[in-house]
Amino acid sequence: MESTFIRWLRERIPTDPRIAIGPGDDAAVLGEFEGHLVVTSDLLADGVHFDAQQQDLKLIGRKALAVNLSDLAAMAARPLAATVSVLLSRAGGLEVAQKLYEGMMPLAEEFDIAVAGGDTNTWDGQIVISVTALGTCHQNPLRRDGAQVGDRILVTGRLGGSILGAHLTFQPRVQEALALAANFEVHAACDISDGLLLDLSQITTSSRCGAELTLGTVPISDAAVQLSQATQRAALDHALCDGEDFELLFVTSESTAQNIIKSGALGVPLSMVGRIVAEEGLWGIDPGGKRRELEPIGYQH
Amino acid sequence: MESTFIRWLRERIPTDPRIAIGPGDDAAVLGEFEGHLVVTSDLLADGVHFDAQQQDLKLIGRKALAVNLSDLAAMAARPLAATVSVLLSRAGGLEVAQKLYEGMMPLAEEFDIAVAGGDTNTWDGQIVISVTALGTCHQNPLRRDGAQVGDRILVTGRLGGSILGAHLTFQPRVQEALALAANFEVHAACDISDGLLLDLSQITTSSRCGAELTLGTVPISDAAVQLSQATQRAALDHALCDGEDFELLFVTSESTAQNIIKSGALGVPLSMVGRIVAEEGLWGIDPGGKRRELEPIGYQH
Repeated sequence: MESTFIRWLRERIPTDPRIAIGPGDDAAVLGEFEGHLVVTSDLLADGVHFDAQQQDLKLIGRKALAVNLSDLAAMAARPLAATVSVLLSRAGGLEVAQKLYEGMMPLAEEFDIAVAGGDTNTWDGQIVISVTALGTCHQNPLRRDGAQVGDRILVTGRLGGSILGAHLTFQPRVQEALALAANFEVHAACDISDGLLLDLSQITTSSRCGAELTLGTVPISDAAVQLSQATQRAALDHALCDGEDFELLFVTSESTAQNIIKSGALGVPLSMVGRIVAEEGLWGIDPGGKRRELEPIGYQH
Repeated sequence: MESTFIRWLRERIPTDPRIAIGPGDDAAVLGEFEGHLVVTSDLLADGVHFDAQQQDLKLIGRKALAVNLSDLAAMAARPLAATVSVLLSRAGGLEVAQKLYEGMMPLAEEFDIAVAGGDTNTWDGQIVISVTALGTCHQNPLRRDGAQVGDRILVTGRLGGSILGAHLTFQPRVQEALALAANFEVHAACDISDGLLLDLSQITTSSRCGAELTLGTVPISDAAVQLSQATQRAALDHALCDGEDFELLFVTSESTAQNIIKSGALGVPLSMVGRIVAEEGLWGIDPGGKRRELEPIGYQH
């Protein structure tokens, strides 16, 4: 099965001028390139990050690459190459593997990332997909630890309720991050994978500061509203705490924030949702002006 | 559990001048470096590549990195950085994760490879460890597809029976491969992960040639002899077909082969086991001079 699949795969992986030696040797070799090299790995498991019984295998394959592209975006790195390791059930493994890759390859092409290699195995357990993505940064990578008191907090898109579908179909914010880093001075950034509050707390903790959210400005997705009807929780709660939005969260000076919004350079909805404060912790100001501490509770798979 | 473990891990990962941004951000950033970049991924699963109930977890963690170092060796790449993704059982996950890393870190230090990041997850299934290793090549990487008719076939160490223990404790041939590539012109190389015959057939297939083994010169390990008593198969069969020896297999001209052996530059036992022939397929010549075709049967996990 494994060798059949690897042959099938090799015929489908396009050649790429950046890959000197591609799949089939002991390792892949990338040609010369400039800048910093960025590397990120995310592993997805059936029953934890996806449901192979209920969900489209192509979307699952797509997601395995997309979450890694989102991490490259969070550093403002240009996608370069990826390795894909899969662990498949013995029964039906070949067909499953093909669907996973059929879902992944169009995304790889769209984001110009070369599938350089990987590892294919079968076992009696559930499906596991482990992807490592490499990217390059010509400018300085966006880090988490540079937030400054007075900075404004911005997010792309709208948040919450990704479990209803967006966690499988989201668009990694690679182009948006590259446009941001090339044209503006951003102090800190990450992608929203564990929920706005939890990811924001990663920025504030590593930057040794706090954050104050103006809760009325948090962009709530339609899915969060829909989900709130089923969960009886406020849609805002879903926008603050749900994971896997894979939107960009970043902080920058007030004037730069205004310039970014005015410029429309990112081409996606952009919301200014709060500011960085000296007092550690997360704080929310509701539309009535009341201030309360927010627990950095996020998404645990 | 995951965040507790990640904190524990971060305290133990040594800082490395090659890593500009290490574990804790969305991705790791490697500083500038020269040469080709080599990337390889291997995924190990409980019940397939190791047995978490029977075997020392530290040796399992060591193996997960060691197999990737062996792939870097097969390309003659100098280890640079690795990402480590683990999928752990919910019960006892933290202790298991710590042991895996305690086994891995001394090997990382010995081979000067920086653990740059990764991903930690828990689930109800068995343990999975997925490692991606990056290395650099200043010279041309060793490929599989350069064997030439008349070349001699060499292997390091002794082969077979790794299931009795060596598959967990083997020494990746990184230094040997670097010495080889720096000082001699090697035409093709790989590591022996699936068994001598199967890996040799990868070289001959991609080089469009065949190989003739002088069976009396194949170096048989003590473990292969020991295993043959239990299996009632010839020890030579184990040396030819067992997987996970993780020795180097390479081909080079006859005069270079003689020079390598005379020089002792590799510092490990080295055997000349045959030659590359034009006729496709694998052929064995037994000590009596009889020639027979060999099936490229190897190790299937």
